[in-house]
Amino acid sequence: MSTKGQNESSPKRSLSYPAPVERLLTELTRLPGIGRRSAERLAFHVLRGDKQAAEKLAHAITDVKSAIGHCSICSNLTEHDPCPICESEKRDRSKILVVEQPRDLIAIEQTAMYQGLYHVLLGRISPLDGIGPEHITARDLLQRIDNPKRNAGGVPIQEVILGMNPTVEGDGTALYLTSQLESRNVRITRLARGLPSGWSMELASKAILADAIEGRQQVRE
Amino acid sequence: MSTKGQNESSPKRSLSYPAPVERLLTELTRLPGIGRRSAERLAFHVLRGDKQAAEKLAHAITDVKSAIGHCSICSNLTEHDPCPICESEKRDRSKILVVEQPRDLIAIEQTAMYQGLYHVLLGRISPLDGIGPEHITARDLLQRIDNPKRNAGGVPIQEVILGMNPTVEGDGTALYLTSQLESRNVRITRLARGLPSGWSMELASKAILADAIEGRQQVRE
Repeated sequence: MSTKGQNESSPKRSLSYPAPVERLLTELTRLPGIGRRSAERLAFHVLRGDKQAAEKLAHAITDVKSAIGHCSICSNLTEHDPCPICESEKRDRSKILVVEQPRDLIAIEQTAMYQGLYHVLLGRISPLDGIGPEHITARDLLQRIDNPKRNAGGVPIQEVILGMNPTVEGDGTALYLTSQLESRNVRITRLARGLPSGWSMELASKAILADAIEGRQQVRE
Repeated sequence: MSTKGQNESSPKRSLSYPAPVERLLTELTRLPGIGRRSAERLAFHVLRGDKQAAEKLAHAITDVKSAIGHCSICSNLTEHDPCPICESEKRDRSKILVVEQPRDLIAIEQTAMYQGLYHVLLGRISPLDGIGPEHITARDLLQRIDNPKRNAGGVPIQEVILGMNPTVEGDGTALYLTSQLESRNVRITRLARGLPSGWSMELASKAILADAIEGRQQVRE
């Protein structure tokens, strides 16, 4: 089907999408995990959809930046500073559960089993990724302990519960925080590890079983 | 670590993200291939990034809807109607290469081997997905052939080149278009199939080899 092939007459060529489409593709590929192909799929979805849907998405993006910040006490995502949890007088302000991300906090809140405050690290220490203690909110945590005025309600902290993910990086972060906390007059605990409730034993990895054995609890004397 | 567990005092709980974050998650999960987890990853990226980056993304989304439409002749994506290719007097307006999507058109343009016009179906017939001829721009194509005024520059069409994907749906779509075109006074051709240039033979599937054998070309008499 090839016609001449020589390009001397140079008919108008369309080597890329129209500029607004290319601009959207550029912005979309900046997002994590979005390559050129995914960006095209998303852009075509926006192009096919109605204008209102596109505007709702665009507004949600700009709104989230203008309306959401981090709590100046615990670093959780919040519309109002301090966040509702730090504001609440019904929470036990002498306890802090330290988590990596806001989503971990939400997962724990959903259990309704914890009444204390939180501290969101907004990451974990990961030397391989160049993420050190200075890149997470570790210093803010230490300041909440050293200076009760920095904690919600000015209440002194008695217990720090380490709730990082049970991963190499989570463990490393816990180790770092423990080293920083040891010299301070607080109780340090960590969330229990063991067999995940509802699993069958055969699904458990060696590491899970090792945790389960090491952390075994006495049922009766 | 569980404190009482009874919820009688009901301390302020945070069972989901702040409202603007949830709104963004809702909009993001409407996009194809984006689940709750991916949406969180994208939303946190926006939250971490600077405000300018978020605004560029939001503007790119609204701009693409207001600035981009489909060419009234060939249905390609375009900022101006008709699109630059249909507008160009240097293209051979008697030939139409029919493709499924705008990205296929761009792929062919990048070869600089084709000087005719295009017709973008914006899909392919796929009965299993409930997509019939009425859901693609097949009727527009037939009208361009039946009424030269509907084609760029009012030029009568002499050849229709079928350039659908070499898939079951692409083949089905080609079959449908062929059945519609046969009664019309146009030459019908299709893009060649065979061994993909640069591959080694052993990577070729049975279907590729079958195409290569069936479509073999004489080298010399």
